[in-house]
Amino acid sequence: MALAYSLDLDRLANSYATHALTPTRVVCDVLAEIDRTRSANPAWLHVIARDALLARAAEVERRRAQGECLPLYGVPYAVKDNIDIAGEPTTAACPAYRYIASETAFAVELLEAAGAICVGKTNMDQFATGLVGTRSPYGACVNPFDGRYISGGSSSGSALAVALGHVSFALGTDTAGSGRVPAAFCNVVGLKPTRGLVSTRGVVPACRTLDCVSIFALTCEDAGAVLDVLAVHDVLDPGSRRETRRSPRTPGRPMRCGVLRAKDLRFFGDAFARDAYGRTLDTLRSLGASFVEIDYAPFAEAARLLYEGPWIAERLAAIEPFYRTRAEHIDPVVREVIGAADKVSGVDAFRGRYRLQALKRRCAEAMQGIDVLAVPSAGTIYRIDDIAADPIGRNTDLGYYTNFVNLLDLCALAVPGHFRSDALPSGLTLIGRAFYEADLAQWGTLLQRAAVERMGATPFALPPAKPPRAARHADAVTLAVVGAHLTGMPLNPQLTDRGARLLESAMTAPHYRLYALAGTAPPKPGLVRVSEGEGAAIEVELWSVPLAAFGSFVAEIPPPLAIGTLTLHDGREVKGFVCESHALANARDISSFGGWREYMMARGSAQRAPEQAATS
Amino acid sequence: MALAYSLDLDRLANSYATHALTPTRVVCDVLAEIDRTRSANPAWLHVIARDALLARAAEVERRRAQGECLPLYGVPYAVKDNIDIAGEPTTAACPAYRYIASETAFAVELLEAAGAICVGKTNMDQFATGLVGTRSPYGACVNPFDGRYISGGSSSGSALAVALGHVSFALGTDTAGSGRVPAAFCNVVGLKPTRGLVSTRGVVPACRTLDCVSIFALTCEDAGAVLDVLAVHDVLDPGSRRETRRSPRTPGRPMRCGVLRAKDLRFFGDAFARDAYGRTLDTLRSLGASFVEIDYAPFAEAARLLYEGPWIAERLAAIEPFYRTRAEHIDPVVREVIGAADKVSGVDAFRGRYRLQALKRRCAEAMQGIDVLAVPSAGTIYRIDDIAADPIGRNTDLGYYTNFVNLLDLCALAVPGHFRSDALPSGLTLIGRAFYEADLAQWGTLLQRAAVERMGATPFALPPAKPPRAARHADAVTLAVVGAHLTGMPLNPQLTDRGARLLESAMTAPHYRLYALAGTAPPKPGLVRVSEGEGAAIEVELWSVPLAAFGSFVAEIPPPLAIGTLTLHDGREVKGFVCESHALANARDISSFGGWREYMMARGSAQRAPEQAATS
Repeated sequence: MALAYSLDLDRLANSYATHALTPTRVVCDVLAEIDRTRSANPAWLHVIARDALLARAAEVERRRAQGECLPLYGVPYAVKDNIDIAGEPTTAACPAYRYIASETAFAVELLEAAGAICVGKTNMDQFATGLVGTRSPYGACVNPFDGRYISGGSSSGSALAVALGHVSFALGTDTAGSGRVPAAFCNVVGLKPTRGLVSTRGVVPACRTLDCVSIFALTCEDAGAVLDVLAVHDVLDPGSRRETRRSPRTPGRPMRCGVLRAKDLRFFGDAFARDAYGRTLDTLRSLGASFVEIDYAPFAEAARLLYEGPWIAERLAAIEPFYRTRAEHIDPVVREVIGAADKVSGVDAFRGRYRLQALKRRCAEAMQGIDVLAVPSAGTIYRIDDIAADPIGRNTDLGYYTNFVNLLDLCALAVPGHFRSDALPSGLTLIGRAFYEADLAQWGTLLQRAAVERMGATPFALPPAKPPRAARHADAVTLAVVGAHLTGMPLNPQLTDRGARLLESAMTAPHYRLYALAGTAPPKPGLVRVSEGEGAAIEVELWSVPLAAFGSFVAEIPPPLAIGTLTLHDGREVKGFVCESHALANARDISSFGGWREYMMARGSAQRAPEQAATS
Repeated sequence: MALAYSLDLDRLANSYATHALTPTRVVCDVLAEIDRTRSANPAWLHVIARDALLARAAEVERRRAQGECLPLYGVPYAVKDNIDIAGEPTTAACPAYRYIASETAFAVELLEAAGAICVGKTNMDQFATGLVGTRSPYGACVNPFDGRYISGGSSSGSALAVALGHVSFALGTDTAGSGRVPAAFCNVVGLKPTRGLVSTRGVVPACRTLDCVSIFALTCEDAGAVLDVLAVHDVLDPGSRRETRRSPRTPGRPMRCGVLRAKDLRFFGDAFARDAYGRTLDTLRSLGASFVEIDYAPFAEAARLLYEGPWIAERLAAIEPFYRTRAEHIDPVVREVIGAADKVSGVDAFRGRYRLQALKRRCAEAMQGIDVLAVPSAGTIYRIDDIAADPIGRNTDLGYYTNFVNLLDLCALAVPGHFRSDALPSGLTLIGRAFYEADLAQWGTLLQRAAVERMGATPFALPPAKPPRAARHADAVTLAVVGAHLTGMPLNPQLTDRGARLLESAMTAPHYRLYALAGTAPPKPGLVRVSEGEGAAIEVELWSVPLAAFGSFVAEIPPPLAIGTLTLHDGREVKGFVCESHALANARDISSFGGWREYMMARGSAQRAPEQAATS
């Protein structure tokens, strides 16, 4: 039926660790499986030669044997056919456009360096223009759950390759929603990172100012792990951005989730879709989300700008020489869509920017009150013959919830939602502010496990959830807090408001004494290092504080407290709260409690006891 | 000849403080002076009614009497006639376009709130399209030093109003160089702030994505003081940016000044201009600048994009209905320039953005090795009849050094340079990265005083230089450093590399003891607070550290040092270095030296003495 084992990163890494599998074996199995399913679904346009793949597998095996750390060791993946790999063909699903790439896209180079193995190139809506998966001369991709339905596009083959269990993950591109709609229709995860977070050098442009490389994966954690490899600034890509990703908010805090008012929801008459959306939101609520209705009007207007505004001219700019000389080789629907660009004037182009800038402000206001915005990944799903009957109108329907995301500089994660009553998948897309991918992953991880049992169209159940991955943070500082900044304590919001994230509880080295400082409000302790043998180990919490916000945090610390360096029980040195010794004159030594929380609880019960006696 | 007193902010504030002048008196004198010079030079298009001005003067006098703090109390200023003032006409120098504004531009509102008094509206190149000052149906502005020459534009009247001593400062706009070229030709200062730092709400757009409100002033300090009032985020202006201005680099550090190679310099056959530029650079070198030749090619190419690329379409977008219906009322040259926009397609518009993005990267690389880029404010100056002979070509010449600045998101300060041998003024423009206005002001202040004696065309000498103004910094923290971070000490670059700025030397309250810590490299002291009566006052330096960079600074501090709060001699509490007391076991108490520098000098001479004896 399918590959005999799951390719999710967790299980694959375990299989490699226990030598139950090797990359060579996986490559052979994947090639056989692709061959076996090829006739049923044109997901793949080009598979890398067997010899080259075996050589590549041997290479990563050798590198690991030599002790190299390969975060994606032996992980098979697919690449949408608008992304270049040196020596391999790129077609963008247009045979006449085909060329052999001379350079490898930067994103693919990063994956190769991380030990992943690219198996081949995948089918797509031609020139990434479409959300349907049918605009390809290589054949329409079909839904893996019901062959009468579309797979979604434009990254149709990439979504399918993951859903069919051929690869662990796949690269797509996402300008209008091409990384989200097919994820929803194939029951896989689709991560569209913030614009400029992943280099687009080596990608055939659709709308160059908006294009993103996207990630299809079996789980949200896997998508996050791939993003960790891909999120590298590319000095040669003018659109690459240096900003760094933000830490997720504290897991304990309830998510304020923006949702659409009933009047703004569109399911295009599809009761199955409406019902699945409702159940998925119920599940999200049960996971701790609170819902805030937002004004969707500026988002919807921004969405319309993508095809009705001047950005269509970018699609023409991307392939103009080809379009002008060989238009007859372009899919007729794609040609009609791109041809509209000839009516866009320079004045229109600037007017579109002005309008977008005004909408951005309104949308940013709407996003201020919420952590994420949740929308259906698509309002409905169409049969392949529905699309043929109205290829442009129905494509537009599918973009109602997706087209605004890149224009407004947001990131998005399409997460599998509950299956519809007709046994087709449905998806919910979580949308966040630029660089807040980690926030989306945290909730996506919970939602996917609560909503679906299997990954893609594979027979495999989701692996157990792991605690959220920390984004790689050269730009965060680990801070030990010991008193009023602990979780649940009055000054804890000074951390959480800055996007700080709880890492762990820990103990200091046994060289400290903890004092309850006199006359502090809220009550605060002072931690003082003493000579060896005279101290105790004190409980602290370690928080990851974004470096950019750390300065303002330090600036708020009142005397006699200061930010110095603490030594932990395991020998690590971390930034942490210390106290000037002159302030200890009237302070009580509370080291014997082992920590501030224990002291406060003991004090609280001591204080409450008489009151309770009085009221009882 | 002119007003009997100088309107520079320093002298005017002094005159108000000593009651030698009142705003009412100044208003009357300014009105008389405008009347007297009106026929000679059409600087003013509209003067506010005398009654309204007197009422306004009385109002600010009353507000001050009530104790209001008015940073621009009674300061007369002019406004370019493309900036709205409610109830007053706006023409953009096109009589047929004239309307009575219903709202006041946000920038003008800020000036009014600060106590400044707007005297009227000034002449300009029509629709701010031009660098010459002759494209106005209200008459060509003429150079105040030689009536045969142009004043420069498009903010011609604003530059003149300042140069003639009618007002203390004037608002202009600067898209292509309109705030710099006329400053150079009129011997005044022209500050073009970073895009989005000053709101453009209420300004008739030229190129809406590039337009800036600019400031003409008699001195660099005055321009900076006006910017301090204007640099307020405007939530209703989509182009307004929240980023904050950076502190200037330490005055002690030599400026790395980018200059053009001889092959890239263009003076259009004007030996006077070439000579003045050379002398001005010599002066800059004598002030401590070191020169680095940069590759001007990407800057020059970006400059050409402004009129030869798609941005011309913005000029049409700004006035399209008027242009389509009443083009005969537009200055023929302006009409010809704007008319080129009809040939710009949507594809062209996006291609221009792509090209600019690529050039931005190359220019940012060139800017990395330098603190500021210095260019002639203009390569030559033309006679009014020269312009008439080739109005577009000669305008293009004047933009050779200016047109790229807004496209590349830079800020610029046009500073008077040495006068030419033919007694006309010349200017040097200092160009900096976005938000580094304070850096430019620091050098401009020195250069203006070294290069010229008088302000504008007034008979008044420059007031004495003051230490550079601190930019208002809600986003900086004042940090007391006590040891290896002092000026000249080994760790001082940890401050200067972060854009920190020395504020002052100060003493702590007399409650501290200073210790030379054992085994630290480089040697470091520890400052410890002790009980009252047991301590001493210790010398510290106060540094202003950008808040965004403070976190990474704190993260680098090794134990036993920490960042806490120090009390200064005058009672102020500031962030500062403190020391954990456990580290004092083997440390020498050096409080009697009064500070680390004194201790190190004493130690140094003690150590050097025997060596000198040995070598002599």
